[in-house]
Amino acid sequence: MVPLPSAVVDEAMRTAVAVSESARGISTPNPPVGAVILDAEHRVVGTGATAAPGGPHAEVVALREAGAAAAGGTAVVTLEPCDHTGRTGPCTQALLAAGVARVVHALADPTPTAAGGAETLTRAGVVVESGRLADEVARGPLRFWLHRQRTGRPHVTLKLASTLDGRIAAPDGTSRWITGPAARAAVHAERARLDAIVVGTGTVLADDPALTARADDGTLAVRQPLRVVVGRRKLPAGLRVLDDTAPTRVVREHDPQAVLAALDDLNDVLVEGGATLAGAFLGADLVDRLVLYLAPTVLGAGRSAVESTSVGTLADARGFRRESVTALGDDLRLDFVPVAVPSHPAAAPSHPAARTQQEQTCSPE
Amino acid sequence: MVPLPSAVVDEAMRTAVAVSESARGISTPNPPVGAVILDAEHRVVGTGATAAPGGPHAEVVALREAGAAAAGGTAVVTLEPCDHTGRTGPCTQALLAAGVARVVHALADPTPTAAGGAETLTRAGVVVESGRLADEVARGPLRFWLHRQRTGRPHVTLKLASTLDGRIAAPDGTSRWITGPAARAAVHAERARLDAIVVGTGTVLADDPALTARADDGTLAVRQPLRVVVGRRKLPAGLRVLDDTAPTRVVREHDPQAVLAALDDLNDVLVEGGATLAGAFLGADLVDRLVLYLAPTVLGAGRSAVESTSVGTLADARGFRRESVTALGDDLRLDFVPVAVPSHPAAAPSHPAARTQQEQTCSPE
Ligand SMILES: NC(=O)c1ccc[n+]([C@@H]2O[C@H](COP(=O)([O-])OP(=O)(O)OC[C@H]3O[C@@H](n4cnc5c(N)ncnc54)[C@H](OP(=O)(O)O)[C@@H]3O)[C@@H](O)[C@H]2O)c1
Ligand SMILES: NC(=O)c1ccc[n+]([C@@H]2O[C@H](COP(=O)([O-])OP(=O)(O)OC[C@H]3O[C@@H](n4cnc5c(N)ncnc54)[C@H](OP(=O)(O)O)[C@@H]3O)[C@@H](O)[C@H]2O)c1
Repeated sequence: MVPLPSAVVDEAMRTAVAVSESARGISTPNPPVGAVILDAEHRVVGTGATAAPGGPHAEVVALREAGAAAAGGTAVVTLEPCDHTGRTGPCTQALLAAGVARVVHALADPTPTAAGGAETLTRAGVVVESGRLADEVARGPLRFWLHRQRTGRPHVTLKLASTLDGRIAAPDGTSRWITGPAARAAVHAERARLDAIVVGTGTVLADDPALTARADDGTLAVRQPLRVVVGRRKLPAGLRVLDDTAPTRVVREHDPQAVLAALDDLNDVLVEGGATLAGAFLGADLVDRLVLYLAPTVLGAGRSAVESTSVGTLADARGFRRESVTALGDDLRLDFVPVAVPSHPAAAPSHPAARTQQEQTCSPE
Repeated sequence: MVPLPSAVVDEAMRTAVAVSESARGISTPNPPVGAVILDAEHRVVGTGATAAPGGPHAEVVALREAGAAAAGGTAVVTLEPCDHTGRTGPCTQALLAAGVARVVHALADPTPTAAGGAETLTRAGVVVESGRLADEVARGPLRFWLHRQRTGRPHVTLKLASTLDGRIAAPDGTSRWITGPAARAAVHAERARLDAIVVGTGTVLADDPALTARADDGTLAVRQPLRVVVGRRKLPAGLRVLDDTAPTRVVREHDPQAVLAALDDLNDVLVEGGATLAGAFLGADLVDRLVLYLAPTVLGAGRSAVESTSVGTLADARGFRRESVTALGDDLRLDFVPVAVPSHPAAAPSHPAARTQQEQTCSPE
């Protein structure tokens, strides 16, 4: 075989990640995988992402585009090819039938049913490399599916959008718009990929938001996430969140653990606020990623982005690690992941029922 | 002359800026200028920064180091060489005496007494280029001196250090340490370059800070900024800010304009808080730069970084433009400059006396 330069494989893997972004939300419950086929001279001859359930997997899409050029070539895939006949045949067989000589994947398949692909391919004489750009790929579109495999619950992103002094609304309640058009467009593009947007009744009753994914001109995106409203207050008919532009689920719970249990069928949920719900998820250590949209303004008064009633002293602060900083027009998007604080009492798993009890006792806040 | 590559001049100018950092605070009331001498083959043969008043200017320091190698060479200077005999002779004469063939400076001298250097040099046959990297240089150590030349008052940096949700203290008052060691070290290094650190009586009475520039091990920096305490409450003897490690000025005013008038002899002042003083300076549109140290933590309760009593609606927010984003260990340093909002009523200059009146009426907050 012609030696395969490492930089070529890395570039192909990054292309596979970019391609798989289009499968986010679409492929559920299957993982949004990306694949790139290189021919024997290491030229890209096919790319693919997982189709909706029942449709072809990423490898099969990419092999179809490559055709005969795949023979003697390399398949670069974000996840280990499946060795499992579900609604579609195993990807290992498709790769062998196409005569692929080498397979490079970033992450091993953690599911017992689909795993074993690397072994089957190796036994059939294919050169298999695992672990290429694994950390980078794990932060990409597969993140949410991987999280569910690991923890059994959806991945929770908490989104905050605030001024530089942490305000989300002025004293008179005005809050539109804190962030600029580039950040709002990014939020809407992201919404179309999500499984669910979660807000508290406070936000719905105060702002009557639509919580849909829309283009600049107001056109609805083809795919809409589930809208989830958390709280016990009655929601008057006529609220936008109750219209038929997107599905809506009302969860009459206060315990974040119980809220996630009611979203057991989803991988990727976004908690969009308000301050009370944000405080509850942070307090329960159920935030897997914090995304802060920071507008270059200072208010000096008004509501803060997070309001928790259980915080007394600086040691109660939740710690994060910076993942990325992105400029979005005049605003910044800052991504963080939580830092495990094993000594923190709230970090220890507690009984869900006990938590619900506690929340109820202090509910009139 | 051997053609002088543009990249070489840019690099020399950036070196001149870096060298002049050491003159910040030291050179006052003279500007902290930096100079680099390149020989006829464009090699760096001398660097210099403005010495304390009475000492040599940057060009003279750099020429001394260069010696005979300056003949036929280039002087790269952040500010137009002075043409003025003050406590030292004019730099133009020193450059001519050394036989420098070319002078490149970033900024023209805006002061009537010292200006005219470029003209004198050109008439003597030196090739003079003005404006090289002017914007970049104007954001460097000369920033504060330039600001005073332009506006007649000190340059005001407002520093905020907060959690991601804009908190500077927990409900029980604990606030040490919000930011990490790298950010604190940067704050102390910066203090040693400042003319003054300004805080309100609230901060002094709550935290009894020393407000000195210190190394990691507590050693005091050689140069200490003036400590300024703003407010009318009596300060009990024994407060650290009243000790003799550094000079202190108490300003019994609430109007930020009056506070700056009391600091009329300074170029570069840092308002370090607390929330009330920060709100007053922002409300008076007297913040020339906002530096936000952002710790990767969320509190969810406690004091916000800015508290203003005059803000009602989102339109009252003050707008900024991002200047830079710097990682300092786990923290971020975000620099902003104000965006002029001409339509904003508070942006219009108002009579200081009228303002003081207004502040007094609403002082029991
Ligand atoms: N800029 C932004 O990013 C942004 C985003 C969203 C909202 N906002 C602003 O936030 C404000 C609303 O804030 P908010 O705090 O009232 O709204 P919220 O967090 O959306 O809703 C609060 C409600 O959530 C329910 N809830 C769920 N879990 C809870 C728990 N563990 N503890 C207590 N209550 C729980 C309660 O509803 P029940 O009482 O019904 O049980 C509570 O009243 C609005 O002004 C809105 O404009 C801003
Ligand atoms: N993390 C940080 O970056 C940081 C930095 C500094 C402080 N802090 C925290 O901030 C807290 C103190 O906040 P604070 O707001 O009380 O303190 P402050 O802003 O330092 O001081 C407030 C006092 O300043 C005087 N003042 C000056 N100009 C004023 C104006 N225009 N309007 C009203 N008063 C004016 C008043 O003093 P008189 O009543 O004496 O006239 C007022 O009581 C402390 O808990 C401290 O820990 C945190």
